[in-house]
This record gives sequence, C-alpha cells and structure tokens, in this order.
Amino acid sequence: MKIYFSGSIRGGDPDRGWFQRLIRHLSGHGKVLTENSFGYSTDEEASFDDAWIYERDVEWLREADAVVAEVSAPSLGVGYEVAKAEQWGKPLLLLYREQPGRKPSAMLNGNKALEMLVFTEEDDALKAVDSFLSPIKLSGASTAP
Amino acid sequence: MKIYFSGSIRGGDPDRGWFQRLIRHLSGHGKVLTENSFGYSTDEEASFDDAWIYERDVEWLREADAVVAEVSAPSLGVGYEVAKAEQWGKPLLLLYREQPGRKPSAMLNGNKALEMLVFTEEDDALKAVDSFLSPIKLSGASTAP
Repeated sequence: MKIYFSGSIRGGDPDRGWFQRLIRHLSGHGKVLTENSFGYSTDEEASFDDAWIYERDVEWLREADAVVAEVSAPSLGVGYEVAKAEQWGKPLLLLYREQPGRKPSAMLNGNKALEMLVFTEEDDALKAVDSFLSPIKLSGASTAP
Repeated sequence: MKIYFSGSIRGGDPDRGWFQRLIRHLSGHGKVLTENSFGYSTDEEASFDDAWIYERDVEWLREADAVVAEVSAPSLGVGYEVAKAEQWGKPLLLLYREQPGRKPSAMLNGNKALEMLVFTEEDDALKAVDSFLSPIKLSGASTAP
C-alpha cells in the first residue's frame, strides 16, 4: 500500500517530533511516499526547486492508495493536497490536535465529505490511522493498477 | 462581475488592514462575494457553524467569475479553495507578499498552471489585480449564466 502523508512544512509550526512518530507508524502499514520530505532541514528544503517539489508531490498523490493529512497547523500546501485527494477520490483521513483557543479550518471541518479526527492523545490518532488503513490494505490496494 | 476573495481567517496571521484595502479595491471591479467574511471579530467568526461556512463558501466559489487569493499567510482553507478554483477552471490570481526568511508555498508557487504575483509594494499588487480583472470584465463575465 502506498500512503501519502501530508503535513505543514513551510506553513505554521510543523510539529516535527509528532510527524516523525506518525510517519513511523504509517510505515507499519505500507510505503510512505512523502517520508523523506519531512527529514530535511529548513535550509535544505528551501533550496529545492518549487516546480520540482510540486510535480513530485502531485505524482505521489496520484499514485497513493490512501492519504493521511495532519491539519493541526495552517498550511496552503496541505489544504491544496486535501482538495486534490478529495477530487481524485482518494481515501483520506484528517488529523487535528485539539489546541486551546484555536479551531480547525472551517473549510475542512465543515465539509461533510471529509473525515477529521480531533485528538488530544497521540495514541488515539494512531489508532484512528489503524482503523482507517486496515480496510484499504485488506481490499488489496497494493496490487491495484 | 462576481469576485471571490480568499485569505487566511483562522490560519497564520491574517493581515486585516491589507485585506480590507484589497477588498475595497476589488469592489471597484465587481461584487466581492466574501467581503463580509473578513469583517467579523475572532469570537464572532468562531461562533459560526463550520458546515454553514463551508457550504456558503463553496457556493460562492462556484458562482464566482474570478478568484483572488492572498497567500502570504499559511491557511488550509485558502489552499483548499485555490485547488477548487483550479479544478473548476476559474480565472485565479495569487498574491504573495515578500517576507524576509520565508518562501511562498511550494505547492502553489511550483504549479505552473497558477499565476502568483510576488510583491513588496501593495500598490503593485493592486495594479496586478487591475490587469487580471479588466479582461474578465470586458469579456462580459457579469452576464454569464
């Protein structure tokens, strides 16, 4: 199974420790296409060509069997990818960490076609990932064209 | 002409003064559907139902003749709307204010199908808006079905 993990990079406060934990957990279910995108330093990442990043990420998104988006931090790219995943009918799970004085994006939370887990305990988010991915794996996503 | 203005609300640091200036300028070209969305206090805005916001905004986006998105601040909703506008073939202009030590979203800046103006002077952004909207107005967008 190919999994596209989407999370803030240049946007609001990416939670790198949590993203790494999440990616490790996702790797137990299949190949995380975007894994390396979250391992670069800010300077390294900024040195990449934007068109190259865009083309690569869109290609990965197209070939993904499932998409997990971490939407706790604001990010234009993540919002864009959520819309593309929805457009292309990809199984999609949004994860939002409850934060005092903040609310999730209305455009994502208010869209009944999207599934958003609001969590406080990271373990609950990981369990939601398992429940989300297991039926996709069983349906044989990895052998789909 | 109906114009959809998209900008950060719950996302990263919305620049309210600049948004108001931009909306006033857009109003000289047509009806800004989302005008009121940028006039609420944070508490007022947070009191709205997310599904209501989503349904209303998607309906406005569908009927818009042109979309102007301010993408200087990270925002999931703005990223989502940019993707929808692209999907629906809406004329779309992105405005990004140059900021020291920051870069625009790679997913937006790297997408050659999108037109992004990077500005330092607000007057230059307003001129780009004029150049973007004038041909749409001339083509009779306001009388389109």
